Parts: sequence; C-alpha cells; structure tokens
Amino acid sequence: MPFVLPEIPELRPSRLAMPLVNQLIVNQKRLNLEVSEKNGVHIIDCGVNALGGWEAGVLFAEICMGGLGRVDVRWANFKGFQWPSVQVVTDHPLRACMLSQFAGWSVHARNFSALGSGPGRAVANREKLFAEFGCADPSDNAIICLESEKLPSDEAIQDMLRKCQCKPANLFILVAPTSSLVGSIQIAARTLETGLYKLKTLTYDITAVRTGWGICPLPPVTPDAMQALGRTNDAIRYGASVYFNVNDEDGYLQSIIKQVPTSSSPEYGHLFATVIDQYNDFYDIDPLFFSPAEIWLTNLKSGRCFHAGAVRPELLQVSFGMEV
Amino acid sequence: MPFVLPEIPELRPSRLAMPLVNQLIVNQKRLNLEVSEKNGVHIIDCGVNALGGWEAGVLFAEICMGGLGRVDVRWANFKGFQWPSVQVVTDHPLRACMLSQFAGWSVHARNFSALGSGPGRAVANREKLFAEFGCADPSDNAIICLESEKLPSDEAIQDMLRKCQCKPANLFILVAPTSSLVGSIQIAARTLETGLYKLKTLTYDITAVRTGWGICPLPPVTPDAMQALGRTNDAIRYGASVYFNVNDEDGYLQSIIKQVPTSSSPEYGHLFATVIDQYNDFYDIDPLFFSPAEIWLTNLKSGRCFHAGAVRPELLQVSFGMEV
Amino acid sequence: MPFVLPEIPELRPSRLAMPLVNQLIVNQKRLNLEVSEKNGVHIIDCGVNALGGWEAGVLFAEICMGGLGRVDVRWANFKGFQWPSVQVVTDHPLRACMLSQFAGWSVHARNFSALGSGPGRAVANREKLFAEFGCADPSDNAIICLESEKLPSDEAIQDMLRKCQCKPANLFILVAPTSSLVGSIQIAARTLETGLYKLKTLTYDITAVRTGWGICPLPPVTPDAMQALGRTNDAIRYGASVYFNVNDEDGYLQSIIKQVPTSSSPEYGHLFATVIDQYNDFYDIDPLFFSPAEIWLTNLKSGRCFHAGAVRPELLQVSFGMEV
Repeated sequence: MPFVLPEIPELRPSRLAMPLVNQLIVNQKRLNLEVSEKNGVHIIDCGVNALGGWEAGVLFAEICMGGLGRVDVRWANFKGFQWPSVQVVTDHPLRACMLSQFAGWSVHARNFSALGSGPGRAVANREKLFAEFGCADPSDNAIICLESEKLPSDEAIQDMLRKCQCKPANLFILVAPTSSLVGSIQIAARTLETGLYKLKTLTYDITAVRTGWGICPLPPVTPDAMQALGRTNDAIRYGASVYFNVNDEDGYLQSIIKQVPTSSSPEYGHLFATVIDQYNDFYDIDPLFFSPAEIWLTNLKSGRCFHAGAVRPELLQVSFGMEV
Repeated sequence: MPFVLPEIPELRPSRLAMPLVNQLIVNQKRLNLEVSEKNGVHIIDCGVNALGGWEAGVLFAEICMGGLGRVDVRWANFKGFQWPSVQVVTDHPLRACMLSQFAGWSVHARNFSALGSGPGRAVANREKLFAEFGCADPSDNAIICLESEKLPSDEAIQDMLRKCQCKPANLFILVAPTSSLVGSIQIAARTLETGLYKLKTLTYDITAVRTGWGICPLPPVTPDAMQALGRTNDAIRYGASVYFNVNDEDGYLQSIIKQVPTSSSPEYGHLFATVIDQYNDFYDIDPLFFSPAEIWLTNLKSGRCFHAGAVRPELLQVSFGMEV
Repeated sequence: MPFVLPEIPELRPSRLAMPLVNQLIVNQKRLNLEVSEKNGVHIIDCGVNALGGWEAGVLFAEICMGGLGRVDVRWANFKGFQWPSVQVVTDHPLRACMLSQFAGWSVHARNFSALGSGPGRAVANREKLFAEFGCADPSDNAIICLESEKLPSDEAIQDMLRKCQCKPANLFILVAPTSSLVGSIQIAARTLETGLYKLKTLTYDITAVRTGWGICPLPPVTPDAMQALGRTNDAIRYGASVYFNVNDEDGYLQSIIKQVPTSSSPEYGHLFATVIDQYNDFYDIDPLFFSPAEIWLTNLKSGRCFHAGAVRPELLQVSFGMEV
C-alpha cells in the first residue's frame, strides 16, 4: 500500500495562501499590479500589462507554494560572482512543491494556453499526483498561478472555474509571464520543486524527503519570451543548489545522487537556447533535463551527507547576456 | 514636457513611513533610543545620547526611504571577505531614494546645521527635484531624518515646523550621527540612492529606472566624525554593488555605464580621508565623486545586462581600520 | 561596585519570548511539533517524537534568546563552501545570550537530566550570573528550553515548577535533542553566546559588549547523539564568525583577542570527536575549548577593529560527514 500523506487542515494550501493573495490585492498599487474582475473572478495581473516587482515576485512564489514555504531575495556569492539570489525553504517539500508549486495543470482554451500551478491544482484534483499522495484539497476558494504572456480568455476562466467548482468570487487567478520581474523570481523559486521532480522522474520515492533549502541566482528579465525561458532554466541548471533532509538508505541515496544534478544530463555544459533548438517544442524535452546544478542530501537515518554537481557561474554569465 | 510621476496615495512616503516611526517610539527601550518632546515636536534620538543598534538602524533606513524599500542586515562575502552587509531593495527607486532618502535638505540654524532626508522633504516641497518629478507630498504629518552629532536646537525645530506647515505633534525628527550604530547602517543603506544620484549627475534620465537592489558592507562605528564620514563613503565607493532594472536604449546605457562606478573617478584607489584633505569642505567635493563600487544595469527593453566597476575588499579593510 | 544592568520592563525575556512560544503552539501542525500537557504544564516537543523543522528551529532559538535577538537561516558562502547558515544579531548581547540563551541550568531528576536554557533561568534566579549582573526576572510565566533526547519526567517537571514558582499553566517547557532539525539550528544560533562565554572565561568584563552579529554553518542532522554533539561544536569552532561592538581600551582588546577563537586552543585543528575521547565526560572539557572560529571586535571608543581566527571549511566538511 502506498504512503499517503495525512490530512491536516493546518496544511491546506488554499487556506494558507489566501492571506498572501489578499496582500497582493490590498497593496496592488505599491506592488505595481493590476487587479480586475472578469465575470466575478479575480484576475491579478502581475506582469502582463502591469510592471510588478520584487515584492510581488516573492508573494507570487509563496502563494504558488501554498503558503508552505518561505521565499526571500538576497545578494549571494556564487563562486565569486556576487548576484541577487532567490532562496526558498520549506518544512513541507512534498506538499509545497509537488502538490502546489509544480506546474502540472495545462490550461488550454481557444487562443489561450498556459502552465498552471499553485493551490488551485489540489482543489481541481485532476492530476494523478493527488491520488498518488492522497492529498487533494477540496476547498471553497481556489488560487491558480499562470505563467503566461496574456491574461486568460473568458473561455479559459470558465474552464478553471468549472474544474475548481467554486463561486466566481472565490477564484483568484494570478498571471505573470516568464519574461517579467515577477516571473523571473517565481521561477527561480522553483529550485526545490525541480530537485524533487528530478528525483521523482528517477523513480525515487520523494515521500522520504523531509525538509528542503534552495538557492538560485535571479535571472535578469528580458522581453524575449524564448530568451527568458532560457535564462530561467539556465539559472536553475547552472546556478541552483538544493539541500534536502531525507529519511532513507545510504546505499540507495549514493546510487541515485549522481543522476540528479545537471552534470548528469547529456546536454551538460550547453545553454538552454542551444538545447531547445534540437526539439520541436518545450514539451518534447526529456524530463530528466530539468535539474538543479548541485544537490546535497543529508540522510536523517544515518547522518551521512551526499553531494553531486556544481554551480557554473561562467555559464550563467553567458546565459544572462552579461557584457562584462 | 517632462515625465511626471503619477500621484498615487498608496505611495506617499509620509503615510507609509509612519507605522515604522511608531515602532521606534513604542519599542524605544528595546531599541536603545531616547524619545522626547520639544515644544510638542517628537525628537527621536537614535544615536546622539542614545546608543541605538542594528534594529533601530534598519528602521531608520526604511523610514528614510519613505517605507518604499526593504532594508536588511546580513553577513555577506565580499570576494572572500566575510562581513555584515546592509542590503536594500525597492520597486520604487525614484520615489524611495531620490524623493525621500536623498539628503537634499540642508537644515541650518544658529549653532545647528545638519543634512536632512526622509519623507518630510516632499512635505516641505522646497527642492526643485519635487517640481521636476511632480512628486510633492502635502501631508498632515512630516518625518525628517537628520545626520547630526547634536539634537536640533529650538530654532532649527521651529524652522522645520514652519517649512513643513504641520502641527508640532505631527512632526517627527529622527537624529543619528554619522558616527553611530544607526548612522552606520542608514548610510550603508544609501547604495541605490548613490547610484541614482550619480546617474542623474551624469544627466541620465533616472525615470527610466524601474527597480533596484543594493548591497554594501557595514562600516564599523568610530567616534571620530571625520573618520566615520570616511568609512561610510569608502564602504559605498569600494564595497557597494547596485543592480537596476531600466527601460532604455542599449547604446545609451553602454555609453554611460563606465562613468558610474568609483573606478571612473580621478580619485579611484584613494580612500576618502586622503581625498577630503584636498578640499576645504565636504560640500566642495565634486558630485561625481560619490559612486557605488560596482553597477549592473539590466535593460528591460532588450534583456541585455551591462556592468562596470568592482568591489575592492583590500581597500575596505584599510578604511575600516582593521588590524588583521 | 560591580556594573549592574538596569531593570527595564521592556527587556524582560519571559515577556518578550511569550508571543513566540504562542506561535509554536498555534502553528504546531505546520511546524511539525507535538504539544501536550503534563499536570497542567505545557510540554512542547520540538524534536523528540516530533520532526520539527527550520521554522520551529528559528523560533526555538529566538525564544531561547528571550526575544532579544533575531535569528535567520540563509545560504552563505564560507570561503567557497556554499552552505545554509544560521545568522543571529542582537542589540542586547548580555541579556539575550548570557542571561537567557546560555545553558546554565542543569536539570537533574531520577532518570532524566538535560541542559536547560532560556528565559526561565532568570525566573528561577538560581545561578550566580543573575546576582552578578543584577538581572533576575521575577515573572508569572516561565519558559525553559531543554536540549534533551527525552521529554522531561514528572519529577523533572515538578522540580522546574518549584524552582520557577509559577502556576503549572504558566510553565512552558520546550524540548529538542542535539540530534534534531530544531537542535541543529538552535545550537548554531549560539555563536554570540559562545563568544561571550569565552570572553567571560578569559575574565573579560562582558558588560562592555554593546551589540553582536554571528554566523554559523548549519550542522547537518545525524541520529547519533555523540556525532551530533561533535558536528554542532565543530560548526561553531571551525565555522562561526562573531562580530562585537565593544566599549573598551584598545590595549586590553589587543591583548585578549588572540585568546578568543578556536585557533588559540591546544586542540586546534582537531575535531570534537577526537577531543572528547580524551575526556571522561562532556563536563570535563576545559571551558576555554568552546570558541568561535573567528572574532571581530570594533571598539566604539576608538573605532579600531581587531580580528583573530579563521573559518576552516575543509574541517567542517569532514566533521559534517560529507562525501564530496
């Protein structure tokens, strides 16, 4: 019988993230956001027509993690390269990252498609992840985070509303393009999610992961959507370090860890821009491609610490378009 | 017709900073402050007779930015030199730094003179900056931050009161010497302001600057006022990195960026103490002298990142009087 | 006549820490804690049967400092070794560290013994420190932090209750083993305490210390209690930097500083595990053994900065059991 996460009301993403959504709404002017209603649904534009900023980026990222992680932006030193970083920490990596932050919802409608993430996924409960971990979150309110260059169409909104089965006034849709100030931060906050997803893709049982810490250099914003996709992926692949406390067997951890970081991928050393050229579509990319640069695993059962991968600031600087 | 910032009530420095001033008053004992009233005006001594500390320093700096920036003090690594740093971030660099934090008010009275900064400047509305950017802030309350070794005299207080045209009970004057725990932090929090001021002095149109991040090593406190002035200036000139997101033309950014950091100044490599000796007075110093050590500009229009300057920890260590 | 700290109600650890204790209780599920009552006394299990986590660790550490210090966990760069760090800062080093955080209470009962720290020590007022500094804290409520692998026995609880002379409902006992997520953080937050204790052991008058900043790498958790003790001690001895602002004479600071860091100890270069083998018991270890890796003293009287010691990341990596 599979491990099923216990139902704990205090850990419900839709409830925990709601006060953070309210902060976006109340402080919309200071956060450079545009909040509107479309057929009663709240649309929070964090970077399509609005400028956004660092503060909205941090809130977006924390909302995306269902209020179960702390996100912060600070200067850090990546092997001599002083640069703003996005740091994330959580005591509930599975719930925060896989069951909320993971972009597992493909929102499709006429003339509109976007990656959907956030607490609303567990409300809609349409992905097999939720059955797998027993962690659906039936809730009166739903919060959906879209990575998109456009605001959702009426049809897309109706589709989300139907799938979440909530009243229009209780649906909150946050939108930020990859190529925006908020997008840049919220994607760089996906270090732990990327690490967990990679572990899961390697068939690792991620319910063994207890807590996680991540750091990622902040990818500079660019108006070119494909370049933005490249920088955000490169930031994680060549700049991110993740640290997980796990409860497992040393031999198993030792056998798997070298496959986790970017250094294990055949495309190691290449930037996203050159890799994507070999594929027709983003969705064709091998799921094993998405990796953090560096991973530490501390085994709570044995106290041993395993490590693989390395941060590559010189590749980051090329990806980030730095004219030094 | 010049660009004029829109009037946005949610962005009014005098309102946003007031809750932070209240924190100083309510927690005065814990923050090592001395709060008094002089003819009904609140005088908050943050370092003249009071000791102050890191917490008051952070609040002072955030008040000085009109509540529009976040200030934090953390350890950082400056090219191998591990040292406490002051970090600052804002989504409103122009309003926070130029229209509030900039020390543009020379308070002069018999036996008292000091540099004045903070939200009260836009209330008094006597500098041409406010006309230039259309950003005066008529307000019932006024908050003035003084860099001074003495508390203001009655005459100086009356002068500020008259210029702000507010009731005595609504005027809050914060005072900290350069050579104090609070002074050291609030000046190190002026990285972005220094960068913007330098850009403006170079005739750059700073309304193109959208968001900013800064980091500066914390200058160690010294009782000698001139030495304190030297250390705080050297901290920014040889230790500070600034990062701005701007909306501009690449060619223009490229042509101007090398002139921004300290490395562009004829006094590059010299500490403040030796430079000041060549002048009669602080106010005689060439405005181009005041510069951050390093600057990054990301152009939101093109996605290109421009860089100039470098951090010089070995000069910092001499300036900071380190006996290593 | 000795220096006696003034009685300041706003600085009373038992009052200041109480809201933080309430956070532990209210958010117990999210923080992975187990809160129970034993004869009316609140027992907050932060790592014995409970898992705990980073957030509980930070709160435990801040409670332990009587609400007079700020604790944070961030990635840092220790001479090229990127690793999560625990940072601590206080404007009241003596009260926060020596009069609250210091583990000066040996709780002994049949079948139970543990190191006790936190605000409850000043309530019980049984250590000569409190007489020495005039800083007892008679209070209706008491908060005791135990470093222990077991929850306290009834007898131990009754003993603490009697010594604090408070009602059962007003006694809060927090428990975390050295070998737990919370333990690892709360011990790494003892950098300033370790520095102050070392100075005091060297007969330095620590009332001259005005503010303090500390940073320490986070020791990875291990289930082996002795190994955990080794890692937490090595983290401080080879990884911690402390910075104190003091009010003193340069000659005296210069004469004493080299004796403060680990480099002054005869066991320098050796890990805790090999040192402890030479002793029968933890309590037999020379008090001078416990030291931060590196210390900076800025003399507020003269502005001079003194330094001794160095961080040794290569020793940390061995102690932390890293398989790089």
